[in-house]
Amino acid sequence: FCSQAPIRATLFPGDGIGPEIAESVKEVFREAEVPIEWEEHYVSKEIDPRTQSFLTWESLESVRQNGVGLKGPMATPIGKGHRSLNLTLRKELNLYANVRPCYSLPGYKTRYDNVDLITIRENTEGEYSGLEHQVVRGVVESLKIITRQASLRVAEYAFHYAKTHGRERVSAIHKANIMQKTDGLFLKCCREVAEKYPEITYEEVVIDNCCMMLVKNPALFDVLVMPNLYGDIISDLCAGLIGGLGLTPSCNIGEGGIALAEAVHGSAPDIAGKNLANPTALLLSAVTMLRHLKLNDKADRIHDAIINTISEGKYRTADLGGTSTTTEFTKAICDHL
Amino acid sequence: FCSQAPIRATLFPGDGIGPEIAESVKEVFREAEVPIEWEEHYVSKEIDPRTQSFLTWESLESVRQNGVGLKGPMATPIGKGHRSLNLTLRKELNLYANVRPCYSLPGYKTRYDNVDLITIRENTEGEYSGLEHQVVRGVVESLKIITRQASLRVAEYAFHYAKTHGRERVSAIHKANIMQKTDGLFLKCCREVAEKYPEITYEEVVIDNCCMMLVKNPALFDVLVMPNLYGDIISDLCAGLIGGLGLTPSCNIGEGGIALAEAVHGSAPDIAGKNLANPTALLLSAVTMLRHLKLNDKADRIHDAIINTISEGKYRTADLGGTSTTTEFTKAICDHL
Ligand SMILES: CC(C)[C@H](C(=O)O)[C@@H](O)C(=O)O
Ligand SMILES: CC(C)[C@H](C(=O)O)[C@@H](O)C(=O)O
Repeated sequence: FCSQAPIRATLFPGDGIGPEIAESVKEVFREAEVPIEWEEHYVSKEIDPRTQSFLTWESLESVRQNGVGLKGPMATPIGKGHRSLNLTLRKELNLYANVRPCYSLPGYKTRYDNVDLITIRENTEGEYSGLEHQVVRGVVESLKIITRQASLRVAEYAFHYAKTHGRERVSAIHKANIMQKTDGLFLKCCREVAEKYPEITYEEVVIDNCCMMLVKNPALFDVLVMPNLYGDIISDLCAGLIGGLGLTPSCNIGEGGIALAEAVHGSAPDIAGKNLANPTALLLSAVTMLRHLKLNDKADRIHDAIINTISEGKYRTADLGGTSTTTEFTKAICDHL
Repeated sequence: FCSQAPIRATLFPGDGIGPEIAESVKEVFREAEVPIEWEEHYVSKEIDPRTQSFLTWESLESVRQNGVGLKGPMATPIGKGHRSLNLTLRKELNLYANVRPCYSLPGYKTRYDNVDLITIRENTEGEYSGLEHQVVRGVVESLKIITRQASLRVAEYAFHYAKTHGRERVSAIHKANIMQKTDGLFLKCCREVAEKYPEITYEEVVIDNCCMMLVKNPALFDVLVMPNLYGDIISDLCAGLIGGLGLTPSCNIGEGGIALAEAVHGSAPDIAGKNLANPTALLLSAVTMLRHLKLNDKADRIHDAIINTISEGKYRTADLGGTSTTTEFTKAICDHL
């Protein structure tokens, strides 16, 4: 009756603890009867000349075809002549906005209560241009590139996100008092977009001041939008407020509506294969993927089961002060569904 | 008997609340019989063509001659054709290291206890090069410049500081996984210097991770050294941990042993002239100036009087939840001397 052709989604289990936490997602999705069929792709052991990376052309094609994917941690192999895996994904798939929600998990106490922040990071340019060179011996330079096109689209995404998620305020984070031209252009684009959203309060906050205010009183902020590097910094800071990257989801949005959700924590090789990893960040990322697919009922159900399991406190992995294995914690979530 | 020719020091009271908090420093220094004679310089109303700035040539000469100075907040006037006052001072006086200690004030409660961090920031280059331009319409770039010379001297300063202040660890903060050449050179210089200080533990921490760890557990760090922009961000974050920029000292170190201490908070025009400002940051900065002059007894006495006044809690300015005026708070410090 309700049967529907399953939706295909790409899954990159990734390295280290990646396969274990990906298993947890698969298990929870099975239990919740999510109509998704995973197309699994692993990081290759060899560089694919078509991508200049350990990510194969096929795996990128899979995300392009499916339009949605989920990614575990990837450890970029050391050596020359290839690009970072994360950067390859962002550039090849043109993942222009990185959305990182950060909210206090009920029952998991940190120094901060009721944190509820959304960092939206420009994901393709800025300090991540990759353009660097030695001017003379002992003098090197890196280029930070800001374009009107990329700034407008991430600003547009941020305001649209705020509007459709019942958020009231967008803060553009910058250092335009020093980088007047680059960050100045970014702000100019944000202002242009802000005018189209009169119902959303718009403000501009200098990055250093933003960091000070975030640690003093995170409730001052709501949605934050910013160039690439500031987003890298602020999203980790925000994650720290609620307990760390093991607890925060992330989703990358690309041209043509592609969504690649990912756990942004590391691959934790020290505990890999030991059934000790906390799958929360990947599970919550998978939930953002479900929302992107408009599978809101499933998303809500899984989200609540995760939160309730952590908040109940009986089953917690070691990083949260518990003694549960990954599979025990996963089973507890399934029981809460 | 003990009489000595007084030491001349330059004082920039600055704008907004600057003159009031500078008055507080003068008062406390008088009471503590500090052998210093102030040479006061104000920000000019007109651009001095010799400095291209509202800072006069004479005021810069005064710091060069005296070798030490204290600076209140300066509001850079709006308009084109001149440089930011802070940047002018840093560049003209070659103030290559900015030292920002950050420690919990006993009796002033925040979410964090026992914070004790020293941020040492490269202060002359990096993202603050001022080199920016439009490549084509809608595409702008900023240049981040890292030199071996500036990196070595700030690293040297940081390790020397650690050694002479009984500190155990220096953490170099970077983003060399993305900016391999610029931040890579910075790290290379830090490593070179680290080898000369085998008694100091040396580590390298990526800036995003550093911010997450700082808000989770600041006790993981001790002395932090880093390029300009990261220093700007991290020092404000650290200030936030202990209550804000109204409570943290700062001192700029230049070639030839120049030291310019400064309050890094804003000029707070809204409360200027109302006898409401908190002089703590400028007072603590003045204490770092005394230490630079090796007037350690005076420095200790004044420092303790400030801390005891705040910790006693009877006299506090409004920003710390009290009702005292600047003069009442200053008098309380004098009484504690
Ligand atoms: C691993 C690294 C290249 C990456 C980044 O800097 O963007 C990471 O910190 C992140 O936030 O996804
Ligand atoms: C006012 C501004 C130019 C300055 C900076 O960016 O360095 C300030 O934030 C500081 O930290 O001293």
